[in-house]
Amino acid sequence: MDFQFKLDFKVRDYECDIQGVVNNSVYQNYLEHTRHEFLLSTGIDFAELASQQINLVVVRAELDYKTPLVSGDVFWVGLNLERSSKVRFDFIQDIYRSNDDKLALKAKITGTAVNERGRPFVPDIIEQLFNHNN
Amino acid sequence: MDFQFKLDFKVRDYECDIQGVVNNSVYQNYLEHTRHEFLLSTGIDFAELASQQINLVVVRAELDYKTPLVSGDVFWVGLNLERSSKVRFDFIQDIYRSNDDKLALKAKITGTAVNERGRPFVPDIIEQLFNHNN
Amino acid sequence: MDFQFKLDFKVRDYECDIQGVVNNSVYQNYLEHTRHEFLLSTGIDFAELASQQINLVVVRAELDYKTPLVSGDVFWVGLNLERSSKVRFDFIQDIYRSNDDKLALKAKITGTAVNERGRPFVPDIIEQLFNHNN
Amino acid sequence: MDFQFKLDFKVRDYECDIQGVVNNSVYQNYLEHTRHEFLLSTGIDFAELASQQINLVVVRAELDYKTPLVSGDVFWVGLNLERSSKVRFDFIQDIYRSNDDKLALKAKITGTAVNERGRPFVPDIIEQLFNHNN
Repeated sequence: MDFQFKLDFKVRDYECDIQGVVNNSVYQNYLEHTRHEFLLSTGIDFAELASQQINLVVVRAELDYKTPLVSGDVFWVGLNLERSSKVRFDFIQDIYRSNDDKLALKAKITGTAVNERGRPFVPDIIEQLFNHNN
Repeated sequence: MDFQFKLDFKVRDYECDIQGVVNNSVYQNYLEHTRHEFLLSTGIDFAELASQQINLVVVRAELDYKTPLVSGDVFWVGLNLERSSKVRFDFIQDIYRSNDDKLALKAKITGTAVNERGRPFVPDIIEQLFNHNN
Repeated sequence: MDFQFKLDFKVRDYECDIQGVVNNSVYQNYLEHTRHEFLLSTGIDFAELASQQINLVVVRAELDYKTPLVSGDVFWVGLNLERSSKVRFDFIQDIYRSNDDKLALKAKITGTAVNERGRPFVPDIIEQLFNHNN
Repeated sequence: MDFQFKLDFKVRDYECDIQGVVNNSVYQNYLEHTRHEFLLSTGIDFAELASQQINLVVVRAELDYKTPLVSGDVFWVGLNLERSSKVRFDFIQDIYRSNDDKLALKAKITGTAVNERGRPFVPDIIEQLFNHNN
């Protein structure tokens, strides 16, 4: 599968739980970090936006857990960004174990941006991401 | 709405991120803890099962983020358990802010159990939960 | 031992790691939450202070791990606050397992406050805590 | 300063808290991951040891917080291992911001190993680490 952005990771032992696998919630950390690194690669700084009261927020997350990652696993997260409505965009994000490209997780994370009054909008800098792709 | 199990929480400041709200991934922690406390209330000990190589696992998570929780918020998680297939069950889990019962998050967490050979099955103790509800 | 503030907790399974015990870093979460709840009980809101650019910060942490907490454990954190210098204060924080009062962790967390220019100072509201104790 | 092992990291936004800096507890995650990667580089697999009921445990942690890391910071953790007693060893671990080598944190983490009966001992594979350094 083709992704417009990829990021490499390695499982850290503190991310694993009693079952000896990466805890379910931690995958959202991996996905978030990948989104923020992707945005940064296009010139968008999540933390700086937050300090300007422009908050990129997640409105929905769908995660399909396919193969648990375990201690020592090296993996990568692939990301594609799609427009889903006037004020919403979807991050299609899949996680693959690196040594055998086995699918670990499939996810669709739907986001929007809210301004300082809490109203959803798509800031110009995000808008550019879509024009860029056309 | 009616729930067969409820658990009270309070936001802890370390759970909040740069945006000053509870980080998206942390809601999965709240949901997991609620599921495990629910199971415990029915006599099922997640950790003990894990030590017997019977692993309750999440195969899919759907989360709709409605209202961000912030520092100081008291909230509760409601849970209903439903059978979704022969070897799968759905935890319907909603999070409500306590002071005004405002909906913070809606979630459906689909789980199964896998035995020591990694095969999905529904152990008798889980099976009982459904008979119990009839 | 006598503490000026106590807070009850229960271990959550996601806080446990591969070894089946609460991960070392998580105790700092317990200690932080207890400090913030203690401060709140005296009228000091950590998050509100942060939004005013008055940051309470930890400058040193000493933790002695005595008995690991495990899944299902109920425990409490005791706290005493002591002045250690003109601009520093120590939180003496011990964690006890509730069922047998066995000591799980001893800690001394040294803090200060920094103003918007990053200079250490002790704000009046913190100053009051010490007068209060005399 | 000279370190026998170094590991590179980048701050992830979910590690930052309300104050916009890496949360105090997260540094212990960085330190743990560095210790485990160091051990792995010498052939010692923390997770595999745990599955054999040989548990490497932290008995004491001292952390001096010098400069807060923030969103976007790249940093590295340096590690030296020293024998501190017959059954204890100290990991001297410092964290430096990469762009200016500014010291972010100094730490001394004291560990031991406990066997399946909970008795402290130093397994041969750890013993070798010290002979190796002589």
